[in-house]
Order: sequence, then C-alpha cells, then structure tokens
Amino acid sequence: MTDFWNGSPALRQRLERVVAVIDSTIGSSDFPLRETAALSAEAGGKLLRPALLILGSSFGPGANAERIERLAAAMEILHIATLVHDDIIDEAPLRRGKPSLYATVGVKKAVLAGDWLFSRCFLLASEGPAPEGAAPEDSKGLARLIGAVCSAEISQDLEKYRYSASVRRYLRTIAGKTAALFSLALHAGATEAKAETGVTQALRRAGYDMGMAFQVIDDILDFESAEDVLRKPVGKDIAEGLCTLPLIYALQADRKGMDAILSRGMRPGKAVTPRAAVAAARRASELGGVERARADARRFTQRALAEIERLPASGSRDELMSLAERLLHRAY
Amino acid sequence: MTDFWNGSPALRQRLERVVAVIDSTIGSSDFPLRETAALSAEAGGKLLRPALLILGSSFGPGANAERIERLAAAMEILHIATLVHDDIIDEAPLRRGKPSLYATVGVKKAVLAGDWLFSRCFLLASEGPAPEGAAPEDSKGLARLIGAVCSAEISQDLEKYRYSASVRRYLRTIAGKTAALFSLALHAGATEAKAETGVTQALRRAGYDMGMAFQVIDDILDFESAEDVLRKPVGKDIAEGLCTLPLIYALQADRKGMDAILSRGMRPGKAVTPRAAVAAARRASELGGVERARADARRFTQRALAEIERLPASGSRDELMSLAERLLHRAY
Repeated sequence: MTDFWNGSPALRQRLERVVAVIDSTIGSSDFPLRETAALSAEAGGKLLRPALLILGSSFGPGANAERIERLAAAMEILHIATLVHDDIIDEAPLRRGKPSLYATVGVKKAVLAGDWLFSRCFLLASEGPAPEGAAPEDSKGLARLIGAVCSAEISQDLEKYRYSASVRRYLRTIAGKTAALFSLALHAGATEAKAETGVTQALRRAGYDMGMAFQVIDDILDFESAEDVLRKPVGKDIAEGLCTLPLIYALQADRKGMDAILSRGMRPGKAVTPRAAVAAARRASELGGVERARADARRFTQRALAEIERLPASGSRDELMSLAERLLHRAY
Repeated sequence: MTDFWNGSPALRQRLERVVAVIDSTIGSSDFPLRETAALSAEAGGKLLRPALLILGSSFGPGANAERIERLAAAMEILHIATLVHDDIIDEAPLRRGKPSLYATVGVKKAVLAGDWLFSRCFLLASEGPAPEGAAPEDSKGLARLIGAVCSAEISQDLEKYRYSASVRRYLRTIAGKTAALFSLALHAGATEAKAETGVTQALRRAGYDMGMAFQVIDDILDFESAEDVLRKPVGKDIAEGLCTLPLIYALQADRKGMDAILSRGMRPGKAVTPRAAVAAARRASELGGVERARADARRFTQRALAEIERLPASGSRDELMSLAERLLHRAY
C-alpha cells in the first residue's frame, strides 16, 4: 500500500479493501499469467482513481460500500490494463521502477494479459448487487472510457516525432488519456450513491479539471525529474517523440532554436538521442515553457477547486480539495 | 455479406442488419483508425456467432429484435477484436486472405485498435433497452468470455513448440477459445428472449458441442487444405508450434517417427520449417490422425444434434440442426 494516503486514515482503510478486491479478482482465477499480472498491480501506484470513486460515492445517500469498492477495484484494474498495453506500445523496460510486464513476458503475453485485465474490469463492474439500472450505466461508462483512452493513445502515437506545437491537440489528447478517467471515477461513485444530479455534474467537471492538472504536472516532471525520485530520466518523453506542454510553449517561443537542438540528434520521424532530449528539456525550461505549463496546471486546479467548493460541506469535500492541491504540488 | 447463408433468407436478412450495426458502431466514432478497423470487420467472416445468438433468441417469447441485433454485433466485434490481437501474437501477415490489421498498421496500433474494438463490444452490450436485469448478465457473460479466451490463448502459447500429445489439454484449450463463444452466443440469445431455463441450458450445451466440433474441423483443415480454398498452406499450425488433434493422435501412434520428422526442421523450442511441417502433416494423415480427429468432431456434432432435437420443433431448430451438419462437413 502506497504511503500517499497516510494522512487520510479512513480513506486509506477503504483503499486497503480495494487492494484486497484487486488481489482476489486477479489471484482467484485460472489465468496462466495471473501471478505476473498481480505483480504488475502491486507495483505501487497511488490508487488515485479508486480514491476518487470512493470520495465521489460519499456525496450521495445510497452507496453500497462493497459495490463501491468493487467498482473502485475495476477502475484501478482498467488503469493497470492500459499501462500494460502502453508499455508494449512504448517498448518500456520499466514501470514504476520495476521491470514492466512487457519486459518480463514479451509482447504476446503482455497483449493477452492486458486483455484479460480488461475482462476482469468489466466482470467486477457487472457484478451485483447494483442499484436498479446502475450496472449498465457503469459498464457503458467504462466502455466509453476505454474507447476514449484508445483514441487518445492512437492520436498521440500518430503525432509522434512531429513536435508540432499545437496546444489544442495536446489538451485533447490528455483529456482522453487522463481527465476522462478522473472524471468518470468521481462521477460513477456519485451516481452509484444516488447523489443529486447537480452534485454528480459538479464532480464530473471537478474530476476533469483535476485530471487535466494531473497530466500537465506529470508531463512537467519529465523536464525536471531527478532519476532517484521519479525513476525516469529527464527528457524521456521528448526522446520518445512526445510533444508535451512545456515543449510546445518552448517551440512557440523559439521554433528555430528548439528545432536546431531537436534535429541535432534526430533522424526525420525517428527518436532523438537521449542527449539531445536532455538539452531540449533544459532549453525548454529556460524559455519559460515549464513555467507556462505550470500556470496552466494551476488554472485547471483552481477550476476544480471552484467546483468542489460549491459542493455541500463534508469531510470528503475537504479531502478532495486537499487532494487537488497535493496533486498540483507533487514532485513525483 | 458472406454467401454462407444464401440458403436461409430470413436469417441472412437479420445478419445484414447486424452488419449495419457493426458498421455504424465502428464508423460513427472519432477513433483515428476506425476505417482500418472497419476493413478488418468487413473481411468476410461467416458471422457464425451473431447467427447463433439470433437463432438462440428465437426460442423464447420476449426477444427485442433491435437489442438482439445489437448483442449479435457485440459478439462479432468481440470476435474481430480477438482476431486482431491474435494476429499480433501469431505475427500473421494475412487474415482471411487479406493483409491483417497487424501487418497493415504495426504492433502498436493493432494493440490499441483491438482494445478499442473490445470497448465497442461492451458499449453495445450495455446499451438499452434491455429486459430487467439482462444487461449486467450479458456484460458479465462477455467479460467471462474474454477472460476464458485470453486464458486459452496464453495456455496455447505456453505449450508452443512442445508438441506434447495431450488430448485433454487440447480439448481444454479449444473449449476456451471457441466452444465458450459458441455456447455464450446461443445461451445469451435465449436468455435475452426469456426462454425457459431447460431450453437455455440445452442451447448452452449444444453451442459448446458445436464449437468443439467446429474447432476440431478447423484444425483438421490445416492437414489437408488446398491453398486456394482456405488461403493458408498445409502444415501452417504445425510450423507455428501448435499441436492440434490430428498431430496428437499421430504422436500417440508413432512418437518416434513423428519426432524424427518434426526435429528434422526444428531447433529446440523454435518453429519447424514449412517443409518439415508439410511432411509431418502428411505423415499424421497416413497414421490415421486426421481420421480419428474427424471421428471426434462427428461425436461432438452428434451430441449437439441430440441436444437440439430435444428443443421444441421450429424453423430455428431445423436451421440449427442443418448448421451443425454443415459445419461438420465444411471444407473451408
């Protein structure tokens, strides 16, 4: 269990039950790679999506704790499944500092392990007891979400190594990749608990803005992370051909100069060398790209906070506000 | 539209509507690869799984035609999704005689396109109107099914190039890979239409036996197909390290002789050469392996027919019986 939630003992306790559901869902099957897949689940994420779902469910009167924990587990398994397939796509040797499933078992088995995890996600989401009519809604939400995530990933892939400076395209991609998941988590929790429509809508918007801020910060970390903290080298995204917000702003500020740095290590349509990527990251910082991106993340966070403030006062509301702040200021 | 159903105009008409649902589900999205994925759907399968679902639904009083066609489309999209991922796993250049999606767009995009197709499948299955309580059942069934298919594929992959002569293991693999899908299709159709429990159970068993027979015949075709009919060379499965039923029986009849043929072209744990695979296929035929496998397929078909005969007499019952017979005697 991550120590990210040490300050929130009640939430932490529920997340421990979610982890137990994940373990038993993955462990109790006859899937030949279940142990490897379980390792991938244990590799220590922050369990943000399950936490959001649980927090969302506290805004309505009708939450069934067991069902909420099952849905929260489904969200996390979905997240793990997308990471397993992402690592194939990125040919990533590591995930959260440990060998990725892809690196451990190879492409073929990692494809199937991801598929299997998707199926566990839907199985959990469709298991009762559910309030009348809620289960299809959840399944539909999850299905839409996977579709959005796939679309975003494909778009990102199609744009690779082009370093085109479009803020709009960037925002659309991270909306599908991250904000949609955060948004669904809060919204689905509230819907399950039969919260009022105004409340579920506010949570949906707050989740979206929190997700946008989260991903912008995640992308900023590529420009300043120390390897011992995030366990990934500076400029890794750039080397992989991704054009994230700080780089976009740097390209807008000095296209010629940035192109010169990038093309030093680049064959057209191919990866830049790690060295050129580090140089590009540093220069992007100097050009104010990181600062501008951080200002955007702050704006998204403020929008999220404004939505959350309108919710009825409660411990969960405070928790959600503090979470939005912490995600903005995190360094890993 | 395949001409496999030319003799059944009513069913054919409904399958045309299923194809329209598939087209609009895939085509009406903003998924960047939708056109490529649509091509993969059009590549001319026999639409067996949708046909089974529709036939199953005719055994109950409460079928909603639109919902049945949507579920039938979901089954076919699920099937296509597994084929897309299978082709990555098998590094298959062709699918049904045309370039596979994997060969067209590469590993990365094919992984995401398959994931996206999975999500479309669940989206269709969770869309209303559904009889009370049916939608979660369908989603659950589909989720279980994907799990079973993944498990079967992984088991098959783990056994590759071992040519171990276990009939039991073979039957378990094809049960997960094919029989589970056929069985669910008939069962889900009947359940949606609120057929009696005795009827849905009989259909579930009939689907299982038909699926087993279908896969055994499919595997036999590898031992005798002419390239212009099935569009795949003789011995392809053997060359890929798969040990299907005719080969298992041949290994049981003459392990030493077969090993000698197989090892001629084989490095341990690696593929045998196409030439050695052809020789092994021929010898397996001579040793009676194909004949014994065909007898098994016949037995599965007879068990299916016995189940179907017990159902109330109807046009659909006749259609199902004729289908079971045709699948046994097909040569492609």
